Amino acid sequence: MTSADLASLPLDGQLAEVLAACGRNRERDLADLFRLLAQPSISAQGIGVDECSELVRDLLERSGFAARIMATPGAPVVYGERCNAPGQPTLLIYGHYDVQPADPLEAWDSPPFEPTIRDGRIWARGVADNKGQFVANVLGARAWLETVGELPINVKVVVEGEEESGSPNFPAFVAANRDLLAADLVYVSDGQVFETHQPIVEFGNRGMLYIELVAHGPSRDLHSGNFGGVAPNPAWTLVHLLATMFSPDGEILVPGVLDAVRPVTPELRTALDAIPLDEAAALADIGLTEKAAPKDLPYYDRLMVRPTMNIAGFTSGYGGAGSKTVLPAEARVKMDLRLVPNQDPAVIYDQIRAHVAAHAPGVEILHHGAMEPVAVALDSPLAAPVRRAVEVGFGVAPVDVPMVGGSLPSAVWPKELGVPAIVVPYGNADQANHSPNENMITERFYAGIRTSAALLGAMVGQNRQI
Amino acid sequence: MTSADLASLPLDGQLAEVLAACGRNRERDLADLFRLLAQPSISAQGIGVDECSELVRDLLERSGFAARIMATPGAPVVYGERCNAPGQPTLLIYGHYDVQPADPLEAWDSPPFEPTIRDGRIWARGVADNKGQFVANVLGARAWLETVGELPINVKVVVEGEEESGSPNFPAFVAANRDLLAADLVYVSDGQVFETHQPIVEFGNRGMLYIELVAHGPSRDLHSGNFGGVAPNPAWTLVHLLATMFSPDGEILVPGVLDAVRPVTPELRTALDAIPLDEAAALADIGLTEKAAPKDLPYYDRLMVRPTMNIAGFTSGYGGAGSKTVLPAEARVKMDLRLVPNQDPAVIYDQIRAHVAAHAPGVEILHHGAMEPVAVALDSPLAAPVRRAVEVGFGVAPVDVPMVGGSLPSAVWPKELGVPAIVVPYGNADQANHSPNENMITERFYAGIRTSAALLGAMVGQNRQI
Repeated sequence: MTSADLASLPLDGQLAEVLAACGRNRERDLADLFRLLAQPSISAQGIGVDECSELVRDLLERSGFAARIMATPGAPVVYGERCNAPGQPTLLIYGHYDVQPADPLEAWDSPPFEPTIRDGRIWARGVADNKGQFVANVLGARAWLETVGELPINVKVVVEGEEESGSPNFPAFVAANRDLLAADLVYVSDGQVFETHQPIVEFGNRGMLYIELVAHGPSRDLHSGNFGGVAPNPAWTLVHLLATMFSPDGEILVPGVLDAVRPVTPELRTALDAIPLDEAAALADIGLTEKAAPKDLPYYDRLMVRPTMNIAGFTSGYGGAGSKTVLPAEARVKMDLRLVPNQDPAVIYDQIRAHVAAHAPGVEILHHGAMEPVAVALDSPLAAPVRRAVEVGFGVAPVDVPMVGGSLPSAVWPKELGVPAIVVPYGNADQANHSPNENMITERFYAGIRTSAALLGAMVGQNRQI
Repeated sequence: MTSADLASLPLDGQLAEVLAACGRNRERDLADLFRLLAQPSISAQGIGVDECSELVRDLLERSGFAARIMATPGAPVVYGERCNAPGQPTLLIYGHYDVQPADPLEAWDSPPFEPTIRDGRIWARGVADNKGQFVANVLGARAWLETVGELPINVKVVVEGEEESGSPNFPAFVAANRDLLAADLVYVSDGQVFETHQPIVEFGNRGMLYIELVAHGPSRDLHSGNFGGVAPNPAWTLVHLLATMFSPDGEILVPGVLDAVRPVTPELRTALDAIPLDEAAALADIGLTEKAAPKDLPYYDRLMVRPTMNIAGFTSGYGGAGSKTVLPAEARVKMDLRLVPNQDPAVIYDQIRAHVAAHAPGVEILHHGAMEPVAVALDSPLAAPVRRAVEVGFGVAPVDVPMVGGSLPSAVWPKELGVPAIVVPYGNADQANHSPNENMITERFYAGIRTSAALLGAMVGQNRQI
């Protein structure tokens, strides 16, 4: 946004000064980010995680936070706080300093851990997911401190190092540190906006239940000529079981699973219809011309209103080239169900277990993980300052996204701290997180800094209203 | 069998002499077999095939046959003949000199290509499949020659080198050499008997149709959170298609596929019921207590009367440990159908293709191979001398097996030569062909030599009766 745009917004005098300071500190802010980007921190491979946690602590300290590294059974958590605003609300910023592995290295146009600017973008592993996003939020607070001398509200920062490995220790960490982390709102910048580049505010995400069904046949793979017709085939067992669980029309058939799905209120309908959509382009990008059944369901209802039952993997017998005449000993199907409010993954699991027991009693069911769906009300009182901050930071009013299709372990915040989390992704649509050539449009990094600075101002006086 | 048993059979005087000679030549016969066993001949890996074909030619020549090596586009065929019995019938002996790969080598108790005798068995890769079996047939003829000075009938021997690779060139070889191979009966020793050790005479085998169904979804694997509900899942497409093809009750549902299945005649019923069966033991050996649906179908009807529709492989999405949330781009199922007389694999393929086009028009169907089912009438005139020869060779009357569950390319004999093939397996039930520690009970090798010697005698005067 130009300074003319900024001037047209009715900014508090102090915030205007802070934003101006952000503009003057662009080179230093970028150097602070590059220092983190140059440090590999691959949790899946245990590479550089401790070193990176120290860099994050240093950044927090240099930004005026009292910071420390806190041990977990896995990678350490970095915690910082500056709570010198008595009577004002507390904002908890969440991020993660670990990154995905960078391979295949040969697919990168520049080395993943040598950050560089090219074509108006920062290129580095982890720049979007998540270093460039949480660092922007820290630097927005620093701008307040350096300009005004103090933060206008209380700010806590928690940065974990195992998000890319499924955050195995983080929920327990939060539960064990409820008082330390107590806040009025959890603010998370992660993920990406739509192709339009318009900023968005995310109010929740789908939950998940991940199961595996295992059908057992003979004790070893058999010759299908010598035993075909005699031995039951476990792949057929699963095919017939699965056909009772999900219809060709796209309906989940397991009794009870849909019972708790929240109805679409007029307010939710309006929000869904307001999300930008170029459906033909979205489908073309994944090589499709038609959506899954039922064909007439609106695009975003599929991601935000209806649960899914997805086959993530089906494995049985011979999968190589050509032919092999085997009657397999085993068949396995991995499934994830994306859950919407107010489905409870524990209840859904029991319903599926009962269904499997009734239809294919020999089939084993494994539980590979669950996350509860989370939804923050679109009219939550704390949504207003967030929307206002994004508008100030990006110069464009954001779109409300009631629900993200993916699943995040964000139920930990309402469950353990009693507060919601609102997510504002700073990443561009083509950020290529988890892929080679991960990148972040440089101006989006700076807009993120401005957004978090604006959020601190906008939250003044907004205590405990959720 | 003891010599007392032998004496009790009304043997032709010459045959008695020949069988006595077999008894005197045991050490030399074993050495001849060991020479072939020591030569690796793995067609799948192109190892030692030419060298082995020369050893087979040498054995045939040393046994009194005019032998030569005949080129094919793949491994050579060894052909030998001794046709000095004008007016007498011609027997064509078929075998294969190639063997399965021997890995995993560490699972063998003695090296696979260092034949040895232990516990009354010969241990070596290929001893049962098929070197020990076709060599026995050659040596039975040699005993006639050495004892009487000539063979009582005309004998041709054809030994191919690609059977373990699916005989890709053999049918064309037979078609191109109809006159050379012309015979009254094709005699094959391959495979194994039942656990009872009782000899069997096999009158046919199931055919096969091997297809692959490929369902296409999005153009790449997708994140099931970001796209679940939007993109059609090809694994679900196949599940729903497959459920229309084969019922939970074990019935093939594709229209027309069962139309040509031959009815069970009283004669066939009698033969089926006469086959030895310890069903509980057979099931226990493969870790089962129950047969596939329908449960009340007799055991051998499953292998000899009814066709099967087997899922040999189902592959889609993630098959590793734990969980991965992917919406797969593709799903593949490999299927073999074991066909019975008088099903035609070409007709069945068209019926399945029409069914797939009607139910899942986007699903691709691949044809990976077909073999026609073959059945020789149980009352075929040439069955009598074969049964008689087996009784002489093994000292026990054989059981008729109307059909073998597996599939062999044996339709080539009636189709190209106009004659049937009768199969008499010399291998023991636990021969472990295709596995480590392949073996053949030593006495079964010698019984095989006696059987083929007896067959030459029993066929005298049995011309063109099929």
